[in-house]
Amino acid sequence: MPDVGIIGAGTAGLHLALLLQQAGVSTRVYTHQTADQVASGRPQNSVSHHAPTIAREDAMGVNFWPVEEYGYRVHYHHLNVPDGPPVFRGDFLRPSRVLDYRIYLPRLMAEYEERGGTVEQRAVEPADFEQLGRHHDLIVVAAGSRSFAEYFGERPDVSPYAEPQRYLAVGFWDGVAQTGPRAVTMSISPGHGELLDLPITTFDGWASALLFENVPGGDLEVLMKQRQSDDPEAYRRLTLDKLEQHHPTVRERVDDSRFQLMRPGDILQGAVRPVVREDYRVLPDGTVVLSLGDAHSTVDPVTGQGANAASYEAQVVADTILEDGSVDERFAQKVALRRRERVDGLSTWVNTMIATPTPPHLQKLLGAMSQLRTLCDEFTENFSHPHRNGDMVATPERVDAAIARHTPDDTGPSEAKGP
Amino acid sequence: MPDVGIIGAGTAGLHLALLLQQAGVSTRVYTHQTADQVASGRPQNSVSHHAPTIAREDAMGVNFWPVEEYGYRVHYHHLNVPDGPPVFRGDFLRPSRVLDYRIYLPRLMAEYEERGGTVEQRAVEPADFEQLGRHHDLIVVAAGSRSFAEYFGERPDVSPYAEPQRYLAVGFWDGVAQTGPRAVTMSISPGHGELLDLPITTFDGWASALLFENVPGGDLEVLMKQRQSDDPEAYRRLTLDKLEQHHPTVRERVDDSRFQLMRPGDILQGAVRPVVREDYRVLPDGTVVLSLGDAHSTVDPVTGQGANAASYEAQVVADTILEDGSVDERFAQKVALRRRERVDGLSTWVNTMIATPTPPHLQKLLGAMSQLRTLCDEFTENFSHPHRNGDMVATPERVDAAIARHTPDDTGPSEAKGP
Repeated sequence: MPDVGIIGAGTAGLHLALLLQQAGVSTRVYTHQTADQVASGRPQNSVSHHAPTIAREDAMGVNFWPVEEYGYRVHYHHLNVPDGPPVFRGDFLRPSRVLDYRIYLPRLMAEYEERGGTVEQRAVEPADFEQLGRHHDLIVVAAGSRSFAEYFGERPDVSPYAEPQRYLAVGFWDGVAQTGPRAVTMSISPGHGELLDLPITTFDGWASALLFENVPGGDLEVLMKQRQSDDPEAYRRLTLDKLEQHHPTVRERVDDSRFQLMRPGDILQGAVRPVVREDYRVLPDGTVVLSLGDAHSTVDPVTGQGANAASYEAQVVADTILEDGSVDERFAQKVALRRRERVDGLSTWVNTMIATPTPPHLQKLLGAMSQLRTLCDEFTENFSHPHRNGDMVATPERVDAAIARHTPDDTGPSEAKGP
Repeated sequence: MPDVGIIGAGTAGLHLALLLQQAGVSTRVYTHQTADQVASGRPQNSVSHHAPTIAREDAMGVNFWPVEEYGYRVHYHHLNVPDGPPVFRGDFLRPSRVLDYRIYLPRLMAEYEERGGTVEQRAVEPADFEQLGRHHDLIVVAAGSRSFAEYFGERPDVSPYAEPQRYLAVGFWDGVAQTGPRAVTMSISPGHGELLDLPITTFDGWASALLFENVPGGDLEVLMKQRQSDDPEAYRRLTLDKLEQHHPTVRERVDDSRFQLMRPGDILQGAVRPVVREDYRVLPDGTVVLSLGDAHSTVDPVTGQGANAASYEAQVVADTILEDGSVDERFAQKVALRRRERVDGLSTWVNTMIATPTPPHLQKLLGAMSQLRTLCDEFTENFSHPHRNGDMVATPERVDAAIARHTPDDTGPSEAKGP
């Protein structure tokens, strides 16, 4: 079996390391931050782990946060338009879970080390790959820094945007009552953006991760542009005002007297350009350098899929290493084929969700979801199978087909061309 | 659900039709021959159905030839070289079966019709696709005629040969004793070609399908070039002579007094150029025309994979139709991705097997198989997973890795680069 060098200690790198470690494959993880630095740093994201990712954590023996206690299985949706539909609900078949990554990642790093793995604190750059290639049979890059992004290069057919499509601000807030049942709320303010309100477990217990996905040039972009640290109280009042105007069903649940970040600095402001990159490169000595997770694909967090994509891809890579034994270019091509439907399908979905203006067929789908509960359930469950939502929203005809499938008096086959 | 027009009533077309029919999808099969014409015609091939194909037949309710009675699960190998190894054996995990297609195809056509399907006798050409596209939402071409091959066009990266690499003759012979246990024998005469001796069930019971795979320019090419019908007795004597010289372990089992074709004309002479073609085209009205089976890929029969590839691909297409509902270009791209690893991997395997001269690493593998029983078992079982044999023979390093994996004192991890 080959020896694998893994650069990056996020979900992609750690899931791959743990999966290979379980199978007895020799690995080493390189990361620029210690576990303590991660734990004491700024928030990294507010991503939810969906059921297939949690099942993988179970199989790796690292599901320390059982969904019975930490999970949710409902999405509430609200469209902030005059005479819009009431809040509508979609259910998952199995629960999801949101956890502060400053808890999650250090715990997995510790587990990997306790099981005999080595995490080396080292800032690796592409210039180091040839040297690393003398120690490892395969190099997997599972970190999203700019130099790695440039190293792999983009696949233009699935990287349609030259700029970020949403300006982001995500804070971990106290004083937002949870819904009953516990749920993620997706509130959409057309022309201005989305708010995801996620029930997150933090160092200090439950909080509400308010992820504002703001359309550039819209009324909400200020939530990204105005630096929270310049005047925390002003930013707090700004947030309440914007909630009031654009996301009223979340505003309703706020207790103003308690509305504060859980800890000072529990906020992240920035933007992500969605890109899918090439799957691998080959060093002069023949060693393959494979892209994984953020090095392979960056997605806007509006559908909260980054960590789930990373975990899925880690499983594909681990399975292919174990099946194949060899880690040559043929192996890399196999990985590329095996993960492509899911990666490209996710890209279709997210890039449709963040298109400005919202495409009419996506508007139509959201409208239909407000009327057809089973359609809304399918869309929700597909957060566990995101490429299926990519298939659903890919064309107006596909949206129509999805709606027809869930419309009670639709007879399905009657739509086919006659003989 | 879409309505699907299927051109061709071989394994690809019929398996797809039966799978879709089971799921309630409307289909129509177009073929130029009636079932009676197929039954009374010349032999079509001597292909074996391996366990995954038979499992699919079970699921479709068309496994009328249980492996307990009609199957085999052993390969015997012989290398016709001086001081070569004794005959060596590989075992399947589950049995395979060889059946005269003049029995198989008419029976499946009848079953499809009994279940309500329509088989229309009609010679379709690419010029007819636009007209057919007005009646069907999807057209699947599952027939290997020249006009269809030209319509789809080749994928040059996986179509390395400009000419056939073997000149073929396959006859259904009486008077060849079966091995004990019943088995397929693969006899290799280096520089001249291979003989596959397959236990086939014919209209008149057991026979031996002798498939001579002859190297062009070698001593055996005459078995393809000399037309059997010109002088059947001369051809019979020629066959015995060539068996004697090149394939002695099969010759040993021949009872000369009974050695005759089962029925006059039970022989097929010709050649196949191995080609992988494009996955689909799109008609002006948007209807997808998908390639399947021989329209998608023609493989030399030396590893007997055509029907298994056809059945596998039919399953992929049926699953994707049922999952997706829509049959647009996105659907076609999904089918292409899903079948590519298997199709291209099979191509790697077969095209390595028929390379002239035999590549040194393939010679090395065959030599190792004669010494390492578990390696020979793996190679044999991989007839059910042919892309894995493609992975195994793709490079000299991969052959070395396979041999190392099966060499008792090999420690595996010691081969990895040191830290």
